[in-house]
Amino acid sequence: MSLYIGVDAGGTKVLAGEVTPEGHVVRAAHRRTPERDLPVADLEDAITEAMLEVAGGRPISGVGLALAGLVDAVGESVRFATHLPWREAPVRSSLAERWGCVVALDNDANCAALAERAFGAARGVGDVVMVTVGTGIGGALLSAGRLVRGRNGMAGEFGHMQVESEGLLCGCGLRGCWEQYASGDALVRAAGSTFVDGPAVTAAALDGDALAMAAFETVGDRLGVGLASLVAALDPELVVVGGGVSEAGDLLLDPARSAMARSLHGATHRFLPPVVAARCGPEAGVVGAALLARTQATA
Amino acid sequence: MSLYIGVDAGGTKVLAGEVTPEGHVVRAAHRRTPERDLPVADLEDAITEAMLEVAGGRPISGVGLALAGLVDAVGESVRFATHLPWREAPVRSSLAERWGCVVALDNDANCAALAERAFGAARGVGDVVMVTVGTGIGGALLSAGRLVRGRNGMAGEFGHMQVESEGLLCGCGLRGCWEQYASGDALVRAAGSTFVDGPAVTAAALDGDALAMAAFETVGDRLGVGLASLVAALDPELVVVGGGVSEAGDLLLDPARSAMARSLHGATHRFLPPVVAARCGPEAGVVGAALLARTQATA
Repeated sequence: MSLYIGVDAGGTKVLAGEVTPEGHVVRAAHRRTPERDLPVADLEDAITEAMLEVAGGRPISGVGLALAGLVDAVGESVRFATHLPWREAPVRSSLAERWGCVVALDNDANCAALAERAFGAARGVGDVVMVTVGTGIGGALLSAGRLVRGRNGMAGEFGHMQVESEGLLCGCGLRGCWEQYASGDALVRAAGSTFVDGPAVTAAALDGDALAMAAFETVGDRLGVGLASLVAALDPELVVVGGGVSEAGDLLLDPARSAMARSLHGATHRFLPPVVAARCGPEAGVVGAALLARTQATA
Repeated sequence: MSLYIGVDAGGTKVLAGEVTPEGHVVRAAHRRTPERDLPVADLEDAITEAMLEVAGGRPISGVGLALAGLVDAVGESVRFATHLPWREAPVRSSLAERWGCVVALDNDANCAALAERAFGAARGVGDVVMVTVGTGIGGALLSAGRLVRGRNGMAGEFGHMQVESEGLLCGCGLRGCWEQYASGDALVRAAGSTFVDGPAVTAAALDGDALAMAAFETVGDRLGVGLASLVAALDPELVVVGGGVSEAGDLLLDPARSAMARSLHGATHRFLPPVVAARCGPEAGVVGAALLARTQATA
């Protein structure tokens, strides 16, 4: 049987998994992401180790890599990644040579969208806006069931759309980016100094903590207003919200749905797209990356 | 020879024209748009008169209608139009029956984009963001050279993306819509009470009037910031700016280009799409509508 492995290389963790044709992760391994100022070789070694642990000596048919960064439109190079050391690096060919198998490359939000389309919340849907709400906001677009990659492969960078002209300073250097108002970081900020991170806010809100619940109202509202702008621009059939913060489910999505309906142009003269939580969970990147490798290997 | 006529029905004027296969308007006629509270029949009569004047008794192969309003995704009905009396009206079939020829229907920004793609600034380009800057802001999206219409046929309503959470009240009832900051109306507001309309501001700015030139800087800047958001989301190859205000050319586009480059995420790691003025002029809607009719009649 063919072995396809997906690897999701994020800012803190490298997660590798064997993925079945049905989209199940049957064997996984992970490594800590090396510090960003260490050489590229350290990161590529960590990825290789996690991948080989999953393979366990079996021959590998293909590996897909999902990266938190800007991958070019043809899936060859990493242009830039905030939390990873690659810069204009021909990652695909370099790892394909090292590993002697098919290697596919895309950014993590695109891989998550592919996974949701094939196995999750977007199954069978043609035009989808996917927004991943984690530390920041990422995203991906599906048109007629296919990824819209754009000229540079950078389509879907929704988190850096400006929603306030004199807004909060973003890590990217710009002001008023959407992710300053509707991400995990924004959630922690809205909840105040009691909480150390997003999962802590979610746990408290599920426990009925008023401050944590109010933070979800605030952040969900800003999420929904931004979704209304995306829906005005793109008129999709479905909006899928993924990323770590989406694990809070309706705590986040209910205020987002209300704000979207209230803020959408011509809302009474149109079908309003459902706003649903992603279903493939934290392994969506791994699943989508493996699917990409499988598709390329069998094309 | 086949006769194809395009009709652009806007808030103030109904413009009809015979359009050659090369996209030239060779014969035109117009009527005043009847007041919006008059019956639909008055508007349809005005359109029919302009169209018949262009035909001059010759048999008609097809008529395309470009409308300032929300047309459904299959080109059958007008859902809603701010300045026209149609509401959920099956306009295509009704006029096809009346006229006994092929009738095609789309919104004006989509028609303008089709014209620019076939004969103008977007010739041969696959992925295009078209923004029409007139009284408000409209828009259209091309992906792989084809219009992206969306679930409701409403994709491209860029003017109602929110760019300020506590912003100016828009005619649509929402707050902070982009068109409140970067349209012809915004230009007149920025220029102060000296000027009666957008063309007056343009004429004064071309004459070196400091107030009018400053208004173009202000509005061009807000246009460019919004374009940066669209480019972050869609990563197109080209941005085409049409509509009446775009006739000011670089007066509007130079500040827009600067603001876009300054406000775009990862600008130094990507190809920046050129921002160019539309080339088909005020007849773009007529040309695109006729092209749509020709395409449908010969499909």
